[in-house]
Amino acid sequence: MTELLVTEFVERARRHHPRRSVVGYEHGTEVLRYDYGTLAERVARLAGALQRLGVRPGDRVATLCWNHHRHLELYSAVPMVGAVLHTLNLRLSAEEIAYIVGHANDRMIVADADLVHLLDGVRPELGVIDSGAALEELVADGPELGMPPLRSEHDLAILCYTSGTTGRPKGVGYPHRGLYLHTFAACLADGHAISARDTVLHVVPMFHANGWGVPFAATMAGAAQVLPGPHPTVAELAHIIERERVTYVGMAPTVAVDLLAHVCREGSDVSSLRALVLGGSTPSVDLIRSWEELGVPVFQGWGMTEISPMATFTRDPFPPDDPAERHRRTRTQGTLLPGLQWRIVDDEGRELPWDGESAGELLVRGPWVVDAYYLGEAPDRFVDGWLRTGDVATIGTDGRLRIVDRTKDLIKSGGEWLSSVAIEQALLADPDIADVAVVGVAHERWQERPLAIAVLREGATAGADELRARLAQRVPRWWLPEEIVLVAALPRTSVGKTDKRRLRAQFAGTTTSTGKG
Amino acid sequence: MTELLVTEFVERARRHHPRRSVVGYEHGTEVLRYDYGTLAERVARLAGALQRLGVRPGDRVATLCWNHHRHLELYSAVPMVGAVLHTLNLRLSAEEIAYIVGHANDRMIVADADLVHLLDGVRPELGVIDSGAALEELVADGPELGMPPLRSEHDLAILCYTSGTTGRPKGVGYPHRGLYLHTFAACLADGHAISARDTVLHVVPMFHANGWGVPFAATMAGAAQVLPGPHPTVAELAHIIERERVTYVGMAPTVAVDLLAHVCREGSDVSSLRALVLGGSTPSVDLIRSWEELGVPVFQGWGMTEISPMATFTRDPFPPDDPAERHRRTRTQGTLLPGLQWRIVDDEGRELPWDGESAGELLVRGPWVVDAYYLGEAPDRFVDGWLRTGDVATIGTDGRLRIVDRTKDLIKSGGEWLSSVAIEQALLADPDIADVAVVGVAHERWQERPLAIAVLREGATAGADELRARLAQRVPRWWLPEEIVLVAALPRTSVGKTDKRRLRAQFAGTTTSTGKG
Repeated sequence: MTELLVTEFVERARRHHPRRSVVGYEHGTEVLRYDYGTLAERVARLAGALQRLGVRPGDRVATLCWNHHRHLELYSAVPMVGAVLHTLNLRLSAEEIAYIVGHANDRMIVADADLVHLLDGVRPELGVIDSGAALEELVADGPELGMPPLRSEHDLAILCYTSGTTGRPKGVGYPHRGLYLHTFAACLADGHAISARDTVLHVVPMFHANGWGVPFAATMAGAAQVLPGPHPTVAELAHIIERERVTYVGMAPTVAVDLLAHVCREGSDVSSLRALVLGGSTPSVDLIRSWEELGVPVFQGWGMTEISPMATFTRDPFPPDDPAERHRRTRTQGTLLPGLQWRIVDDEGRELPWDGESAGELLVRGPWVVDAYYLGEAPDRFVDGWLRTGDVATIGTDGRLRIVDRTKDLIKSGGEWLSSVAIEQALLADPDIADVAVVGVAHERWQERPLAIAVLREGATAGADELRARLAQRVPRWWLPEEIVLVAALPRTSVGKTDKRRLRAQFAGTTTSTGKG
Repeated sequence: MTELLVTEFVERARRHHPRRSVVGYEHGTEVLRYDYGTLAERVARLAGALQRLGVRPGDRVATLCWNHHRHLELYSAVPMVGAVLHTLNLRLSAEEIAYIVGHANDRMIVADADLVHLLDGVRPELGVIDSGAALEELVADGPELGMPPLRSEHDLAILCYTSGTTGRPKGVGYPHRGLYLHTFAACLADGHAISARDTVLHVVPMFHANGWGVPFAATMAGAAQVLPGPHPTVAELAHIIERERVTYVGMAPTVAVDLLAHVCREGSDVSSLRALVLGGSTPSVDLIRSWEELGVPVFQGWGMTEISPMATFTRDPFPPDDPAERHRRTRTQGTLLPGLQWRIVDDEGRELPWDGESAGELLVRGPWVVDAYYLGEAPDRFVDGWLRTGDVATIGTDGRLRIVDRTKDLIKSGGEWLSSVAIEQALLADPDIADVAVVGVAHERWQERPLAIAVLREGATAGADELRARLAQRVPRWWLPEEIVLVAALPRTSVGKTDKRRLRAQFAGTTTSTGKG
């Protein structure tokens, strides 16, 4: 039997796409350009050096790195010696990183120089290798890895911790087998369709759920890969897209908003893009329409760290001519990738129909859905082989997913579930509101009631009462937040999502006593 | 762990592409049209009926069928009860079929009425079910299969015998796992790219190496599927392509030649085709160019029954503008699909370089390459996990495969290997020759020498000596066949290839004593 190992992809690229490039940028300037032949050789030397340093099969080798070529090399080199690449999230605090490094019991850490301060809390005896000169020396001196150790497709290749919005971060270990199948799924004609024709720009952090799996997919397909380096700004991204004729890029909607503004202001040439893939939160119609007007097709993918992460895609076999209907479909979370299965269930675990109305918790299973957390934490999230996603969703008769809410973001008001996301969407329809979050606060009569924290659009002058009055015209009375609090900006998590956990803590004292709704 | 089972695809199609169609034709007339919801229900009933008939996990259920919807239903229904679908080649003789049915120890056979006479030689106690009314009754009466038996991805789903050009037919058993990964490979953007947008016409017989894997790929992708029924003529195929707006079709070059002639004569509309995939033998430049002039992109795939069967594809990431170079590339056997590995080796098993010149036996391995024949026959064809293909090939610096010959078709002349295929290609360049085969015949001085058996083009009047004299202008002297024998037609194997085994037997007596070359 052939074991399914993701470490084969770099060898495939060397043999079958030797002339395709890996390109590195730093602060908008090209600093490196080599081909897959060189990548494969460097990976083999790096693997040999790691082995000589004493890294053994099963060891965790952590990275605290931006998206650069050495991070890409480690993606293959660490699993090649049978070890596990543990990607650390550089947006976490030193304290959180210390917890995660300790929990994973990492053997060594490769870190970018400007991020080393985040390792202040880790145990001092842990080896920290600078990802720059020190790693380059390892590559230069490394003996090419001869015979790699025997590995099974069930061995872990990568380990990544969730961002921990629901408690302590949990480890998600990816076996080769799941990542291998996820890579094939990413290259399906009906999926992201990553191919040898593509030039891929890695904007999604490679520490975040395998960079959405695109580094492996691009390597397997023999696509050109461009790495933007540390702290990429939207100006740098626009410049790189134009200069490298990038065809495929994925990013969070917030980044796409800023990039769009830059592109429109500077007139950057983005005509090479065949796919702008958005993920992490639902993009607005405005955002989709504006990119389409630039000639860039927009897709949405939905996934989770626990799903490697891709689960859905919004590619439409027969896109409608009507732009409104097209945008509506792109704003759903799309249809399920082949290989996966899903269902929505009510509180008692009973399956709900695909009618676009019935909302329940989304369960997912399949070859690249992990079936346990690292070291077996939170076993209640896995039921009979299904992952409980914690997302509340509907599935339409057309098989399109719509995430309605996180289970923990639902507000229980007078025995009824209120969707914070639905109230947020209604508030965002107000032209004066730029950003908003709705959380539940304790209420003595109704148990819980919604509270909105909003950011005004530049130049808007409406007060909280006026905004609330306007909203009352558009939503059922019982949806109306007890209060709208105006703030300058919303707090964000390490992956750019609104940090509702922090908002809930901040406004926990805002107990209300009378239901104005 | 999620087992990789091909029986999931029909359920996926039902849930995610309920309105896409399966369409059946008979003699050019539409006889049936249903959707994937119906397909899934019929498959479940058929599986239930098979179970009630006593079919148990591991049993072989044979089919002797044309490409029709009941054959497609059996593709999923038989593996769904844990049994093995054994596809019988309807172009074999009754004697050969009796041997294969006996060897596989089939439990029952589903046969088309017009093919039942081919079962005269099988043991009488074997149950034969008519694929028409009798099967329809089973579907109608079948209880929906409740809980399918537990199955492993290593269980066989399909069994198919090689056409036996090198001895007795050998069984090739396909486990679910290999077929599942093969299905993903068929849907890759860089592969056949079968997608939900496609309407697929099944011209490749479904008894021949899983119909190239397209029935599973189309079902997984949710493509519409069209089945042409018994004895399809090129006139029927052209009519179906036009009427159903077929986008994807695969066939042997000989069928594509006849279809082209019909399309040009009748002016059929083939503008819907996005891919005409040729396989089985190398297409001529003329054939590729003529289809391209009709606006139909032509691809070539190379594979083998033992590889499920797809191994290569000629999709070009950056097709050259120059048509001659484009056609040259399409006439190679293409580049290797992701997931597989190959090498070419000399007689001592040493790996040869990818230089486009060094020719050696092609070895292939990967997740959908079988690692043994059914019941363990011919173990010498499998070495250290590699399949010895029996094909002699070169691999270019660009990774493109060129099949030079079959090892058994090489002619050993005076200690040098002569390629029968190279001599055939040289002869086909003569405008008077329509078809040709070159075989080796014994020679007392040179050990073996080539003999050519040729078919003249309509209206051509050249004699054998004249053809030989012309060839002498174009090839090395020692390539020149001892003799060119003119015949009315070449014998064909059951899958349409030139039957060299028969020619070798027929001309075995033609011992030559003097090397004219």
